[in-house]
Amino acid sequence: MTETLLARHIAEVGLIDQHVHGCWLAAGDRRRFENALNEANTDPVADAGFDSQLGFAVRAHCGPVLGLAKHADPQAYWEHRGQFGETELARAFLPAAGVTDWLVDTGIDGDIASVAEVAEFSGNRAHEIVRLEQVAEQAAQAPGDYARAFEEILHRRAATAVGTKSILAYRGGFDGDLSEPSPGEVAEAAGRWRDAGGTRLRDRVLLRFGLHQALRLRKPLQFHVGFGDRDCDLHKANPLLLLDFLRLCSAAPTPTPIVLLHCYPYEREAGYLAQAFDNVFVDGGLSVNYLGARAPAFLARLLEMAPFGKLLYSSDGFGPAELHFLGAALWRNGIHRVLRGFVDDGDWCESDAIRVVDLIAHGNAARVYDLDGGRR
Amino acid sequence: MTETLLARHIAEVGLIDQHVHGCWLAAGDRRRFENALNEANTDPVADAGFDSQLGFAVRAHCGPVLGLAKHADPQAYWEHRGQFGETELARAFLPAAGVTDWLVDTGIDGDIASVAEVAEFSGNRAHEIVRLEQVAEQAAQAPGDYARAFEEILHRRAATAVGTKSILAYRGGFDGDLSEPSPGEVAEAAGRWRDAGGTRLRDRVLLRFGLHQALRLRKPLQFHVGFGDRDCDLHKANPLLLLDFLRLCSAAPTPTPIVLLHCYPYEREAGYLAQAFDNVFVDGGLSVNYLGARAPAFLARLLEMAPFGKLLYSSDGFGPAELHFLGAALWRNGIHRVLRGFVDDGDWCESDAIRVVDLIAHGNAARVYDLDGGRR
Amino acid sequence: MTETLLARHIAEVGLIDQHVHGCWLAAGDRRRFENALNEANTDPVADAGFDSQLGFAVRAHCGPVLGLAKHADPQAYWEHRGQFGETELARAFLPAAGVTDWLVDTGIDGDIASVAEVAEFSGNRAHEIVRLEQVAEQAAQAPGDYARAFEEILHRRAATAVGTKSILAYRGGFDGDLSEPSPGEVAEAAGRWRDAGGTRLRDRVLLRFGLHQALRLRKPLQFHVGFGDRDCDLHKANPLLLLDFLRLCSAAPTPTPIVLLHCYPYEREAGYLAQAFDNVFVDGGLSVNYLGARAPAFLARLLEMAPFGKLLYSSDGFGPAELHFLGAALWRNGIHRVLRGFVDDGDWCESDAIRVVDLIAHGNAARVYDLDGGRR
Repeated sequence: MTETLLARHIAEVGLIDQHVHGCWLAAGDRRRFENALNEANTDPVADAGFDSQLGFAVRAHCGPVLGLAKHADPQAYWEHRGQFGETELARAFLPAAGVTDWLVDTGIDGDIASVAEVAEFSGNRAHEIVRLEQVAEQAAQAPGDYARAFEEILHRRAATAVGTKSILAYRGGFDGDLSEPSPGEVAEAAGRWRDAGGTRLRDRVLLRFGLHQALRLRKPLQFHVGFGDRDCDLHKANPLLLLDFLRLCSAAPTPTPIVLLHCYPYEREAGYLAQAFDNVFVDGGLSVNYLGARAPAFLARLLEMAPFGKLLYSSDGFGPAELHFLGAALWRNGIHRVLRGFVDDGDWCESDAIRVVDLIAHGNAARVYDLDGGRR
Repeated sequence: MTETLLARHIAEVGLIDQHVHGCWLAAGDRRRFENALNEANTDPVADAGFDSQLGFAVRAHCGPVLGLAKHADPQAYWEHRGQFGETELARAFLPAAGVTDWLVDTGIDGDIASVAEVAEFSGNRAHEIVRLEQVAEQAAQAPGDYARAFEEILHRRAATAVGTKSILAYRGGFDGDLSEPSPGEVAEAAGRWRDAGGTRLRDRVLLRFGLHQALRLRKPLQFHVGFGDRDCDLHKANPLLLLDFLRLCSAAPTPTPIVLLHCYPYEREAGYLAQAFDNVFVDGGLSVNYLGARAPAFLARLLEMAPFGKLLYSSDGFGPAELHFLGAALWRNGIHRVLRGFVDDGDWCESDAIRVVDLIAHGNAARVYDLDGGRR
Repeated sequence: MTETLLARHIAEVGLIDQHVHGCWLAAGDRRRFENALNEANTDPVADAGFDSQLGFAVRAHCGPVLGLAKHADPQAYWEHRGQFGETELARAFLPAAGVTDWLVDTGIDGDIASVAEVAEFSGNRAHEIVRLEQVAEQAAQAPGDYARAFEEILHRRAATAVGTKSILAYRGGFDGDLSEPSPGEVAEAAGRWRDAGGTRLRDRVLLRFGLHQALRLRKPLQFHVGFGDRDCDLHKANPLLLLDFLRLCSAAPTPTPIVLLHCYPYEREAGYLAQAFDNVFVDGGLSVNYLGARAPAFLARLLEMAPFGKLLYSSDGFGPAELHFLGAALWRNGIHRVLRGFVDDGDWCESDAIRVVDLIAHGNAARVYDLDGGRR
């Protein structure tokens, strides 16, 4: 039966989660948990995290992994979850995601799993993504010339990493000049910043410097785009504001891959950029978890202008191990809903749908991050 | 049968229409009626109002309330409607909306029903929303110090009102500084404006002054956002341009609730803000009527990032009493279509869907406007 | 049976393709073909054109016109297509589109079919649309006063044309002043531009001059809006940035029709403008081909705020004759999917749906371009 073929393939396909963080290691209270279900609000959000698409999705999809009925109420979910330690939860949820490779952005501090622990809990591979603003903050504290320190730290850390990540969206946004600054400008800006303490980089010159250093590595450079917490001016995280930067990158003899993460509500703009530039890739990331029952509509919008060789998968899981699993569960559900529709309407054939699933699930990521591609 | 339960609940649930205007009191010609079916155009739109989603929705949903067949043609609808006086129409359509409380923005002049008349025609409660720019225009005509006059009028009118409303979107848009101006700046701007006649406030200083006076009342402050007539620069009514203002409001010890109205085509951005700020609420308002058969798609987009405790209902009805009813009819239809889909797909359970219906229909509004909440 | 009635009507209705270019005349390689399936990228896109919604749609809908099975694989499609000459392909695909009138924008140079050849290949009527920037470039090369040369060329060419077209989106975007420049400003700008070679017009003064000359013709003026290649800053092709220009145009005693083409991802904003201004019309154009299986979702968004008398059809076909046919095939499929849904949900009646199909397919275009309207 044709329906079964696509559905089964999607249920079983191995994923590369190309942007994720560590899960919690130690127990916390319900407030911590509910706050972890709200991305945008930076204030404490007491007792409301469950009343959202994400909260409903946790109850629908994560409960059964722990032996609860689907849609168990928030109190029951919270109590049941509390019977396990956080690392036990990780050992339940991470393997259940069906992820073969986790690409872990290590740029967020806190009591969370390391790259090695993500590998261990999941029983699969994990690789590092180096956050550029963290490298900058390390270089600010290092002795000697800033630029040299940045390059040294970046090259050392990137040697074992598969890519880099920028949170420029949170540090002033995409609007404005993103060309490479001169060494003199960098030295001057670094001096100013070090004098001011050298923390939480927001200096535009140094942010630009970091991006261009990352481009030279030729490893994929990820950008946080769109949806995130309210420290970001969402309209300044519109990926179209990266156009001049992307024109510049794409003019290099061997352009560095640029990966646009999350993208909500600019996923259609991001898809356009993936069509416009050979080296631009797009991933709904975080948005899929947050959209819950609306994730299929979002995934469908991602499948508009982006060529199928340019789409990637990630969960952006951070904190509760539920999110590392839920991203995968919602992606499988959503992509099935959307592609099943294309096939049922006669617009696609099933074998094409299966091939596109493979591309988004792992094929594109294996190629762009050069993850022992031969095996796949 | 589970389908029946959710469907019946939605059909019967009492609504709080949290943003509405008066309906017409006196008869008018067909041109007036058709123009009332086009929001954006400020020119006369002869004989074309029916050829739109709203026009089709009037024929589909309002005709039967008057005893006409569904989809009766425009001429038949117009003739049949003409057999009733406007207040007779109001006595038919307003009760049919199933609205328990109308929150009436009294800021539009004209021969339309007062708050008391809305209550009388509907057989239910009505409350006032005070429009800030109208208060400013009253203060401009009052003797003595402008700021004192504004405060005095605002406090007097707000004493019996449940909230305030700003049409900043029509008076220059959201872009730019929205901090509180100094008393000196206010006095100077007020002098200039009064010298120029003191009508149709567009002075930025005085608009900002009004917003901050309203915040002090601690009653919800509504903003016209997005879709409206072409006097508004739609792209300057993007709610993301309110980010700095919202950051400022949310830093208060007891933040004043901010309600984003209409929001099309920025409903996803508005939903994001509702997630990002504890005190931000979102309502599709006017857009639901204008989208007709596409209202379900719009309501689904509102149900993306906004927590379910942050969504409200309104019709923004003004003029033809049809609109006061149609908003409710389209909302019921649309929310059923969307939530039924979530339940059928296994993403939500029906009892959650019913609870979310109650929140949006009346629970959230009763709480935020403090409408004898105990009763509900 | 009611389903059959709407479906049959849509399958058979004659279309006016109100914005199209010539198809290829001479054979080319696979690289040329695949590049023609990517609009946004200006670099060569080797072997990836098929892996997109457009590529899948070509295989699904165009293959059968040539006697291939639906969804034949790319290699099979390419080989089969190669058995025909380009003009043979045109003689197969153009008549299959069911288009009665082609409005051909002749502003792109290259070895492509002329207006007369489009008529000949299709067996139907073709009319010219004059591109303003091409007129400007011709005037730059003409002797004597620039303004006079522009007017002379425009009037001569427009005498037999049905409208004009601007690619301002590609020449700086919509942001900024679009009022009419003075004769002195025009003369000065023209002098500068001629001195610099007089090619690829980007001078703002001269672009503005051209628009206002076109408005005086009273023939519809088309604007490229939104989606196109990456030379365009997509966010500066947001049609809301035309608001001041549209206010100005609409204030004329007999406003010139303005047609917004393509519009992705701003189709909802464009629909709003069609509601806001009597003389604004909207057309999804190019976007329909590129969205393939997602075209119904796009067409549904166009059917939100735009009055039904303001929507038009075009394919924007250029190059492969497939695109001239595919636009029509996808529009028929998509409009059926959307309107069938409205009817099945009870929001529209079928006779209304059929009437709206006629308006979008040809009625609106016949009226606005004055194409022997009596016949229809």
